Amino acid sequence: MSLLVLGSVALDSVKTPLEERHDQLGGSASYAAVAASFFSPVNLVGIVGEDFPEENIAFFQSRNIDLAGLQVVPGKTFRWSGEYLWDMNQRETRSVELNVFENFTPELPDAYRSARMVLLGNIAPALQHHVLDQLVRPHFVIADTMDLWINIARPELERLLARVDMLILNDGEARELTGETSLIKAGKKIRGMGPSTVAIKKGEHGCLLFGDGQFFSCPAYPLEDIYDPTGAGDCFAGGLAGHLASRHLSDAELSEKKEIPFEYLKQAVVEGSVIASFNVESFSMERLRTVTRGEIAERYAIFRSLGRFEDL
Amino acid sequence: MSLLVLGSVALDSVKTPLEERHDQLGGSASYAAVAASFFSPVNLVGIVGEDFPEENIAFFQSRNIDLAGLQVVPGKTFRWSGEYLWDMNQRETRSVELNVFENFTPELPDAYRSARMVLLGNIAPALQHHVLDQLVRPHFVIADTMDLWINIARPELERLLARVDMLILNDGEARELTGETSLIKAGKKIRGMGPSTVAIKKGEHGCLLFGDGQFFSCPAYPLEDIYDPTGAGDCFAGGLAGHLASRHLSDAELSEKKEIPFEYLKQAVVEGSVIASFNVESFSMERLRTVTRGEIAERYAIFRSLGRFEDL
Repeated sequence: MSLLVLGSVALDSVKTPLEERHDQLGGSASYAAVAASFFSPVNLVGIVGEDFPEENIAFFQSRNIDLAGLQVVPGKTFRWSGEYLWDMNQRETRSVELNVFENFTPELPDAYRSARMVLLGNIAPALQHHVLDQLVRPHFVIADTMDLWINIARPELERLLARVDMLILNDGEARELTGETSLIKAGKKIRGMGPSTVAIKKGEHGCLLFGDGQFFSCPAYPLEDIYDPTGAGDCFAGGLAGHLASRHLSDAELSEKKEIPFEYLKQAVVEGSVIASFNVESFSMERLRTVTRGEIAERYAIFRSLGRFEDL
Repeated sequence: MSLLVLGSVALDSVKTPLEERHDQLGGSASYAAVAASFFSPVNLVGIVGEDFPEENIAFFQSRNIDLAGLQVVPGKTFRWSGEYLWDMNQRETRSVELNVFENFTPELPDAYRSARMVLLGNIAPALQHHVLDQLVRPHFVIADTMDLWINIARPELERLLARVDMLILNDGEARELTGETSLIKAGKKIRGMGPSTVAIKKGEHGCLLFGDGQFFSCPAYPLEDIYDPTGAGDCFAGGLAGHLASRHLSDAELSEKKEIPFEYLKQAVVEGSVIASFNVESFSMERLRTVTRGEIAERYAIFRSLGRFEDL
């Protein structure tokens, strides 16, 4: 099954304590689509300017990412610039140039409207709504978000929650959205706002997954060094959604009931964590250009061993 | 096998947003000994004054805790008073009265000197050394510590690390001790300072365990509410050490080699987490007075399910 991915496509300038690079391929849709492409075909919905490098287009195509939904319009591509402080735990946005993104209205090609598995990547909730409005009968809709939208577009975000099956956000955002200090309470409260499934990302502490009376604690991969955290969250969402899309192509029972087995969701969270853990090992999207299916399977097995212990 | 437990025995006055109580049984040795007593007999080493309530003595005895090493001397028992702020994440010490603790020199009864499994609970490193000096040939020594000793007794603490098999500390303390931001780096660095095994407690995020080329990520129990966090760390250490003591009584191979299988250490970390998760459900040590072996086994099984997922 193809995965529909909406989000930003950007040219990033990133500075870490170790390195600085300009106009790297970035944006939530780029990271998510490439991450998902390890598991399923992807239909990408986004916008770029005429300055968007041809090599990025070729890279997307080499990853089996369909670009019929990528608008190429006059003007400059969205640009983001940020800097990570010495311990990589804090990020400062240095500049944002919206450029062609400012007037972006996502229009789905006809072939995309029947999408069953959908990732509304991190982008303004109004645009996430706009894509949802064009879908005929999506089976499972995953939304990613960030603190910015909680702060400046909360009503649209709350309306969105009632329309999606799964929300992905980080620990600080979950606390901000719910006013709860306890992440356990926050996760349950967000389920009450709409999505039947909630994933709370905790960075170096892994991820919590909340379902209907079900709960999963995914460990973090024990990385000693993070080279560049940019796009880790998008890779997590993309890997997760791509895994689910790959699982559901042949499941006849899906036309009958809405529920995805919690076991599939847990495995998807792990696959997302695996891809994110690779992505932070190198600058920009570099590691995703070389990682193999074999390496992904190997790391999945390591994730299984991280938290495993025997019965007494 | 009996577990030797050194630490403080105190009368605590604790205020939480919900409740305030005075002169509750507290101290690192009290919590650790009671936690360990679910798994093995305990020999407790500590000191109290003549005002120490007889009911606490009776409670220890009812838990199969030997008190030959508990000095009862003229004067008042050590008292600690603290307050938790609304979200239970921050604690303020309101007062400390050392009383009889001020001149405490732990003297082991002869029968204790042959102890094989030892928990040096959270107490001044000089006292931890003093107990070690009296042991004939301990098989596995676990030390618990806290930020206070890193700050005011670092040389003694560093000397202690070279003498123990396992160190338990929390995430902030691990960072402070090593100067590393990454907990993975910190855990490995502490192993290089002496202990072959290191457990880093992360509160609501669980616990990391570092061994020789081995690693374990223990999830946290998904508690919605914490009633009183006092003693959680001591219960973790005590449950862990008690479990190890219970495992090793009959293991003939232990006289031959020093190493405890990493699988035993993982299971011990889980048992410690189980006891700590019960302890924070009620005020003071209340929950440990009622919890049953069956409830402990049940929660161990829940811990197993928290992070479990299938192969693909």
